[in-house]
Amino acid sequence: MTAREFDHIALSVENIQTSISWYKENLNAEVQYADDTWAMLLIGDVRVALTLPTQHPPHIAFIAESFSELGEDPRVHRDGSNYIYKSDPDGNTVELILLEGK
Amino acid sequence: MTAREFDHIALSVENIQTSISWYKENLNAEVQYADDTWAMLLIGDVRVALTLPTQHPPHIAFIAESFSELGEDPRVHRDGSNYIYKSDPDGNTVELILLEGK
Repeated sequence: MTAREFDHIALSVENIQTSISWYKENLNAEVQYADDTWAMLLIGDVRVALTLPTQHPPHIAFIAESFSELGEDPRVHRDGSNYIYKSDPDGNTVELILLEGK
Repeated sequence: MTAREFDHIALSVENIQTSISWYKENLNAEVQYADDTWAMLLIGDVRVALTLPTQHPPHIAFIAESFSELGEDPRVHRDGSNYIYKSDPDGNTVELILLEGK
């Protein structure tokens, strides 16, 4: 198995716009996408997603190595990418994601 | 203000060795440091710290821009680096760290 490619971090927040303001002010975040249910920020060279807790758990995401690694029933993001969530022994969520077109 | 430089992610785990095994098996993590209270893993090109919840909250860490940014009473890691924790509007912890010798 090769080394994993990191994709993004996702944090749970209650109000997307409030959090965007905080991350812009405190960490000079650049907004790549935002609506009322989630946002994708670029902070330095790392992508940080802000999501409502009703939508996704906080997680760290890595690129899946192949479609078959996602098993028989992957979930599909709104952008068409396929993903699964795995839980580490403490319930921390790790996402494996296969980006659309890859 | 310039773009922030990302440093690491930290996850809370109850047993460092159990978690190391999981991250090695599932994400091909490389162990950079480990003892019974914390570990630093390299997963792909991202550093992921495993810490006991009694030691540190889960957090994402960025490089501080200057010593003065840490305020008058920074904390000191065992490796000599200075740091502070900030809370975003939802209580997610952001660490600003000034690495020793920088």
